[in-house]
Amino acid sequence: MLAAQGGEAPGGEASGGDASGGDASGGDVRSVSRFPFSAAHAQAVRVVAAWMEEAGLSAGCDEFGNLIGACPGSGDGPAIILGSHLDTVPCGGMFDGALGVMAGVEVAAALHESGRGLHHPLAVVGFADEEGHQFGVGTLASRCVTGRIPRERFASLQGRDGRTLAESLAAFAPGLPRCAFPERAAAYLELHIEQGPVLARSGRRVAVVSTITGIARTVVVLEGESNHAGTTPMVDRRDALVGAAEVVLAVHALARDAGAPAVGTVGALSVSPGASNVVPGRAELSIEFRTTDGVRLRSLCAGIEVEARQVAQSRGLSCHVGDWDLRDPVPMDEGVQQAIKQAIQDAGCEPFAMSSGAGHDAMVLAPHVPSGMIFVPSAGGISHSPREWTEWEDAALGAAVLLRTVVLLDEARHL
Amino acid sequence: MLAAQGGEAPGGEASGGDASGGDASGGDVRSVSRFPFSAAHAQAVRVVAAWMEEAGLSAGCDEFGNLIGACPGSGDGPAIILGSHLDTVPCGGMFDGALGVMAGVEVAAALHESGRGLHHPLAVVGFADEEGHQFGVGTLASRCVTGRIPRERFASLQGRDGRTLAESLAAFAPGLPRCAFPERAAAYLELHIEQGPVLARSGRRVAVVSTITGIARTVVVLEGESNHAGTTPMVDRRDALVGAAEVVLAVHALARDAGAPAVGTVGALSVSPGASNVVPGRAELSIEFRTTDGVRLRSLCAGIEVEARQVAQSRGLSCHVGDWDLRDPVPMDEGVQQAIKQAIQDAGCEPFAMSSGAGHDAMVLAPHVPSGMIFVPSAGGISHSPREWTEWEDAALGAAVLLRTVVLLDEARHL
Repeated sequence: MLAAQGGEAPGGEASGGDASGGDASGGDVRSVSRFPFSAAHAQAVRVVAAWMEEAGLSAGCDEFGNLIGACPGSGDGPAIILGSHLDTVPCGGMFDGALGVMAGVEVAAALHESGRGLHHPLAVVGFADEEGHQFGVGTLASRCVTGRIPRERFASLQGRDGRTLAESLAAFAPGLPRCAFPERAAAYLELHIEQGPVLARSGRRVAVVSTITGIARTVVVLEGESNHAGTTPMVDRRDALVGAAEVVLAVHALARDAGAPAVGTVGALSVSPGASNVVPGRAELSIEFRTTDGVRLRSLCAGIEVEARQVAQSRGLSCHVGDWDLRDPVPMDEGVQQAIKQAIQDAGCEPFAMSSGAGHDAMVLAPHVPSGMIFVPSAGGISHSPREWTEWEDAALGAAVLLRTVVLLDEARHL
Repeated sequence: MLAAQGGEAPGGEASGGDASGGDASGGDVRSVSRFPFSAAHAQAVRVVAAWMEEAGLSAGCDEFGNLIGACPGSGDGPAIILGSHLDTVPCGGMFDGALGVMAGVEVAAALHESGRGLHHPLAVVGFADEEGHQFGVGTLASRCVTGRIPRERFASLQGRDGRTLAESLAAFAPGLPRCAFPERAAAYLELHIEQGPVLARSGRRVAVVSTITGIARTVVVLEGESNHAGTTPMVDRRDALVGAAEVVLAVHALARDAGAPAVGTVGALSVSPGASNVVPGRAELSIEFRTTDGVRLRSLCAGIEVEARQVAQSRGLSCHVGDWDLRDPVPMDEGVQQAIKQAIQDAGCEPFAMSSGAGHDAMVLAPHVPSGMIFVPSAGGISHSPREWTEWEDAALGAAVLLRTVVLLDEARHL
C-alpha cells in the first residue's frame, strides 16, 4: 500500500510540487501545512479512515479528534497500539507523523490480507495534534488521551485562530463515528523519521530508539541601560546585548563540551529598544538544553545560570532567569526495545539503538503503556521542511520492522 | 529670560510632570514629544517667535519650516547665526535642541535691552527637524537649507505618518510670515547639552567642541541553516546567532581597544526564524562606529569586516556586509573655537575642549559657514529621555558664553 501511495501526502494543503511526489535529489519538493482540526486535517482523517476500513479496521474519532482504527484480537486482552500524528508544522514535509500512521495501516492491511489474526486487539492511531502549532502545547492530543492535560484545562486552550480547543473540536466534523481510545494497552509502537542526520550518516536504514531526550527551557532577561550610542563612552556602557552575546556563546560551549547527544540552543533573542544608534538596554533570550541523562540536563541548566549571572555582574547588568520548564528523558520499554531489535535482525539488518532528540507521542504514552519507537533515516537530517525526505525503501523497511515487532510482541505477550 | 522660563518647554506634548519643571534628583520628570511639523511644533514656533519679537528680532519661517528671527547690524555684512533645533525624539527631554534656540533668543534679548547693536546682522534659528524621527534623515532641516538634500528629493521623502515632506510643509501653518535663511553668514554658533557623561564627570560646567565625531554604519547579515534544535548535533550546526554573538563582541572589543572617543555599537539584532526550538538560520545586525579621526574610523570598519568574515568561515555561515554609510568627522572652525575659549575664560572658567559624540546641525553648516559649538553638562550623561537634565546655572553660563562669543566675533570680524 505504501508503494501505491507514491509521494502523495494524505490530505493537507500541498504546494511547491505536483502530485508525482517528492525527490530529495531533484527540485521537486512538497510543502504540507496540515494544522489540527483544519479542513485539511478533516480531509486527511477521511482519507486514512477509508484506508483503515480497507485494512479491516473500524475507523472512528475520539473526543479529542484522534483517528482510531481498531479490530478485535482472538483474545480479550489489552490492545497493541500503532501510530503517530497527522498534523504538521507550517510548510512541513510529508513524512513527519504521517509515515507512522500509514505504516500502522499498512501493518493492519498485511495482517488482514494474510488472514493471520492477532491474539491482541489491534489499534492504529492518528493523533490530532503533536506539533503544538495551533495551541502552543506539543503532543497535545496524546496528553489529552492520557489525562496529563486535565479536561477543564484543555477545553479552554486558546488557538492561533482565536478559537478555543473546545470550539475547534465541536467544529471538527470528518464524518466518522465517535469511538474511544483503547482503555487497556499491551504496547504502543511508533515508526517515525529521525529528523536528524545521525542515522543517515551512519549508513544504516533503521534503528530502535533507546530514550527520548529530556528537554529544559527557560527565558533569560538581561537589563542594563539604554543610552546614546554616540555620547556614551565604552567604559560607561551597560549594554544588554553584549551580555546576551556572551550567554549565547556560553550555551553553545556548555552543550558542545557535554558531548553528544547533548544540545543547547538560543533560538530567539530580542533587543530593546533595537535602534542602530542606541545602546541596548534590554535583551531577552530563550535557552533550551536537551540530553538523554536527567542529571546532566540539570547540570547544564545550573551551569548556564552561573555563567549568565557572572556575565551580568561583569557587564553591570541585572539578570533574571525564568523558571525552567524541565521534562525528564523518557526511556523506552526494555521488552519492546528487545522485540524491535529482534525484528530489525530478522529483516537482515544490524540492530542499532539511538536516542531521539525530538519529542514524540511515545514519550507521553510511555508512563502508561510499554512503548517503543522505530526510526528511519531523514536525508540530510532535514525535517520540518518541504525538503524532508526518506527513501521509500527505508520507509517500507521501517513498516516491515513494525509488522514483525507486532507479531513478536503478540506471541510473547499473548493472553 | 531663561530663568523666567523655569522648567517650561516651549510647546510640545508634555507628560509625566507638572508645569513646575524638572528636577534631576527628584521623581518629577517631563517627557517631550515634539515631532517636526506637528501641532506641537507649530505651537512651539509661535511661542518662540513671540519671544523673538520681544527680543527685537523679526520672526518668520523659511520654506523648510525653520523658525528664523533676524535683526540687521550696523554694517551690511554676513550674519552671525545662533541656533539649534526645536524638534525632539519621542519621549525626549526639554533641553536637547530647545536650549540652543532659547539661548540664541536670550542673547538677542540681552543685546536689545542693553541698546548695544552689532556690526553684523544677527539671526537666531530654530531648525525644524534635526532628530530625523519623522522622515528617517537626521539634521534634515539644515541639510535642506545648505542644499545637501536636493529639492527634488526632499519633497518626496515619506514620513512616519504617511505624508511626504512636501505635504507636511504645506500643512504646517504656524501663522508666521515667510522669510529666507540668511544668504551670507560670518559664523554659526550652537549651544547644546553634551548628551554624554564626560563634561559632568570632569566637574566643568562648559566646554568648546573641537570636532563632531565621524559615524560609519552598516548592516551585516549572517546566514547558516535553520534546523531542528533537538535533532541537530552541535557539530552539524550552522547557527547564525552564534556567529552574530561573536560579531557583537568583536564590535565591542574593537571600539574599546581603539580607546576614547571611539565607540562601537550593535543596537539592533534580529534572528530568524526566532523560535526557541529552532537553530537560527539567519541573523541581521546593525553596526555603528564613531570616532573623531577619519582614518581610525575607516580602520574600525575594515577591522570588523575581517572579523565578521572570519567568524562566518569558522561557523560555516555566509556573511554579507552592506555598504557603509560613512560620514567623516567635522572639525569646528579654529577661529570660532578660539573666540569660544576666550569667552569661557572671560566667564571665569578654564577653557576645556572636547569632541561631540552626537551629530548636530553645526556639522551640516560647518562646510559652508565657520561654525562652533558650546557644550553644557548633561547630568548622568542622560539624554533622549525625560530624565535629561542640565542645571539652570549651567544653562545660563552657556548662554553667557554664547553672548560673549558673539561680541568677540563681531569685534574681530567686523566689516
